[in-house]
Amino acid sequence: MTSRNRQPGQLVRAPENYVPAMLAREIDAGGMNDERRTFLRKSFLGALGASAGLALAQAARAAPPSGDPAILEKQPWQTSLGHPVAAIGYGVPSKYEANLQRRESPGLTRVSAASVAFTPLQGLFGIITPSGLHFERHHQGWVDIDPNKHRLMINGLVAQPRVYTMNDLMRLPSVSRIHFIECGANTGIEWGNVAVPTVQYTHGMLSCCEFTGVPLALLLDDCGVDLKAGKYVLAEGGEGSGMTRTIPMENALDDALVVWGMNGEMLRPENGYPLRLVVPGVQGVSSVKWLRRLEVGDEPYASKDEAVHYIDLMPDGQHRQYTSIQECKSVITTPSGGQQLLDKGFYNVSGMAWSGRGKVARVDVSFDGGKRWRAARLESPILSKAVTRFNIDWDWDGAPAILQSRAVDETGYVQPSIRVLREVRGTRSIYHNNAIQSWKVDANGEVSNVQVG
Amino acid sequence: MTSRNRQPGQLVRAPENYVPAMLAREIDAGGMNDERRTFLRKSFLGALGASAGLALAQAARAAPPSGDPAILEKQPWQTSLGHPVAAIGYGVPSKYEANLQRRESPGLTRVSAASVAFTPLQGLFGIITPSGLHFERHHQGWVDIDPNKHRLMINGLVAQPRVYTMNDLMRLPSVSRIHFIECGANTGIEWGNVAVPTVQYTHGMLSCCEFTGVPLALLLDDCGVDLKAGKYVLAEGGEGSGMTRTIPMENALDDALVVWGMNGEMLRPENGYPLRLVVPGVQGVSSVKWLRRLEVGDEPYASKDEAVHYIDLMPDGQHRQYTSIQECKSVITTPSGGQQLLDKGFYNVSGMAWSGRGKVARVDVSFDGGKRWRAARLESPILSKAVTRFNIDWDWDGAPAILQSRAVDETGYVQPSIRVLREVRGTRSIYHNNAIQSWKVDANGEVSNVQVG
Repeated sequence: MTSRNRQPGQLVRAPENYVPAMLAREIDAGGMNDERRTFLRKSFLGALGASAGLALAQAARAAPPSGDPAILEKQPWQTSLGHPVAAIGYGVPSKYEANLQRRESPGLTRVSAASVAFTPLQGLFGIITPSGLHFERHHQGWVDIDPNKHRLMINGLVAQPRVYTMNDLMRLPSVSRIHFIECGANTGIEWGNVAVPTVQYTHGMLSCCEFTGVPLALLLDDCGVDLKAGKYVLAEGGEGSGMTRTIPMENALDDALVVWGMNGEMLRPENGYPLRLVVPGVQGVSSVKWLRRLEVGDEPYASKDEAVHYIDLMPDGQHRQYTSIQECKSVITTPSGGQQLLDKGFYNVSGMAWSGRGKVARVDVSFDGGKRWRAARLESPILSKAVTRFNIDWDWDGAPAILQSRAVDETGYVQPSIRVLREVRGTRSIYHNNAIQSWKVDANGEVSNVQVG
Repeated sequence: MTSRNRQPGQLVRAPENYVPAMLAREIDAGGMNDERRTFLRKSFLGALGASAGLALAQAARAAPPSGDPAILEKQPWQTSLGHPVAAIGYGVPSKYEANLQRRESPGLTRVSAASVAFTPLQGLFGIITPSGLHFERHHQGWVDIDPNKHRLMINGLVAQPRVYTMNDLMRLPSVSRIHFIECGANTGIEWGNVAVPTVQYTHGMLSCCEFTGVPLALLLDDCGVDLKAGKYVLAEGGEGSGMTRTIPMENALDDALVVWGMNGEMLRPENGYPLRLVVPGVQGVSSVKWLRRLEVGDEPYASKDEAVHYIDLMPDGQHRQYTSIQECKSVITTPSGGQQLLDKGFYNVSGMAWSGRGKVARVDVSFDGGKRWRAARLESPILSKAVTRFNIDWDWDGAPAILQSRAVDETGYVQPSIRVLREVRGTRSIYHNNAIQSWKVDANGEVSNVQVG
């Protein structure tokens, strides 16, 4: 994402078929057209009439079966033989979930090979991002590398430069860790007074998966790294852009991983198959995909993507370089922009929180634009540098409301408001926006993105 | 799985293209034929010659680049524009991973609609099973239910019977939990002196995912459950078999969940979309898929699948009914049956451990058929009623070896040997085999399934 794509007033176009109704994932699925969707929504509004005014103690006021066609009519799946297991197969989502997709933001970059496809956070649960929905951000497109031909070279300030095959690497002691990866440009468009319509586009350059691989520290040790002179590691990608990033030695020796596994299976091609670096807590660009080389050096490399991109333009006109840690951040995903509450009553409000510095300690939620705050429930497991899922009860009285979440991490750092963040950083940054996100709920239930001091 | 399918001596056929070489997932992928595979394997053996005799301290003796064609030749992915992000897309695995699939065991059941497709544990990492590889076991095939038409009824000993739509349910306070689901018949064929060739078929009716849904206790409370008279809950599935299972009230009120989310997205159709029960720690059949009804009763229901199936035929001829907790168990997945060690030297030996009674406390591994045991490293997170990944270093000297893993859970229960288990249970059971698994490594590196006292 470059600054030319962030002209003030330029909205990222909402997807043509984004979900218009909260918790009505059923409604938007299957490629239904608008007529069908409106018809179904009216049906739901009718059906839900009986359950208006839900309260937590008696949360669901579901009607008894009388008159409900779905109960009275035998459905085909109840009266026929189902589908057999496939002799050899790899499962796919239900046809009714056809609209839960990664989506490119048209016009964000000049070519689709250097673009972004965002994770649909508004439709996700828990902390694991399905591999098929992990966000994509490439600099010269994704490649499907033959693992037989892939090599990892380690050179520079090491006693013995080496070249590893995939077989060499997969024989080594491996670890598995759940971590988030967030692009440094995530939420970048919000620096200006621009409100992107949905959470997929405001925060969807965030994913969280279980990664398996070998600690980078072990590989450096195997090559006899010179820790006296060697202070940085250059990571280089194997695709056409030859993406290069400088990794401080403290990260390299701490918890950085050279991984091949993601969510139990091999990495997906868009996420670096067969080998990528994962630098937990650091902006995603440093988790170099299709990793082919690691070079140990004595100073930062100032490569193209470090000198021109992923830098912060401060109010005084200076560029801040090598900011890398993704600070504590959170966002409510249900409800979120572009969705619509169907009626008054009880809702489970849900979201994600994460910190590049460790564990999430607490998430507070406000329903009145920041005047009052209540602590949300945090789901376990709460893991370091991983997404934490939070949930909180809300009984909507039908009046306009502004929903916000504010995360605190184990260092005590509190996620800032956009106003406070702008006081320090100005409005000309692209990267590293971890401000509190505000969603406005109108009286008709429509949820939209607003910027609230 | 019925007893007629377990005739002594009947082997489950190995998949035609199972992985012949450990850690050479690359070799078997892409539908390569035998010539190609043999050629590549010889190449690998040559390339790996330089790395024979690896030891942990200097684990990988990878050769410098000279003469390695993969280093010297420019590859197409380095010199061309890659693939663009899709405007709308859902990712799939690399073409080189085409052999990592769920597989049916031909002949296991009379029809494929009542069959099993096993999870390829030999190719998985960490604890999360990708949704596309979650094992399948159906009684009348899988169905793709329209969530708009799906309802959940709760009736029986409740003050107010109710019918919930998916919208009703998804508005309720939800939780997310990582749990394993294991079919009660997993490892069932091993009760006899039958050694199934691969871990996919010995243990592949096991998967572990993050589930999101509403606690069953909340729904029962919402309906005003009569806890004085109500001691059991009958769960009924919405597909043609109308699978019914009795859930003890203590499980229902403890940690049972009515879930719609799996690994961050909606359940897959083969796993119960749009709604299933998850009863953590209990055999998989109780986690009723396509859940449509819950009835509170005062005694067990003795439904067909409780009276005829999922019972244990004891040595004295009696049937043991309503055994349900999946006891502590573990298995080494790398290396495992059907794989082949390429040469002597260092290996990371990896596997999975789990217990239906809580957390895994410890896993010991033996390389000499149970004479000596060493503690494996347990990967975090270690969660209750979830799979725990373990890893241990092994320097193979080239001599025949027998690999075993033995898990201990937080209750102190120790996974038994097959000999000890048979002393109590005999050999005529189908279900609930949690014995220690033995893999024999021959001098040529071939790994096979053996039964060791």
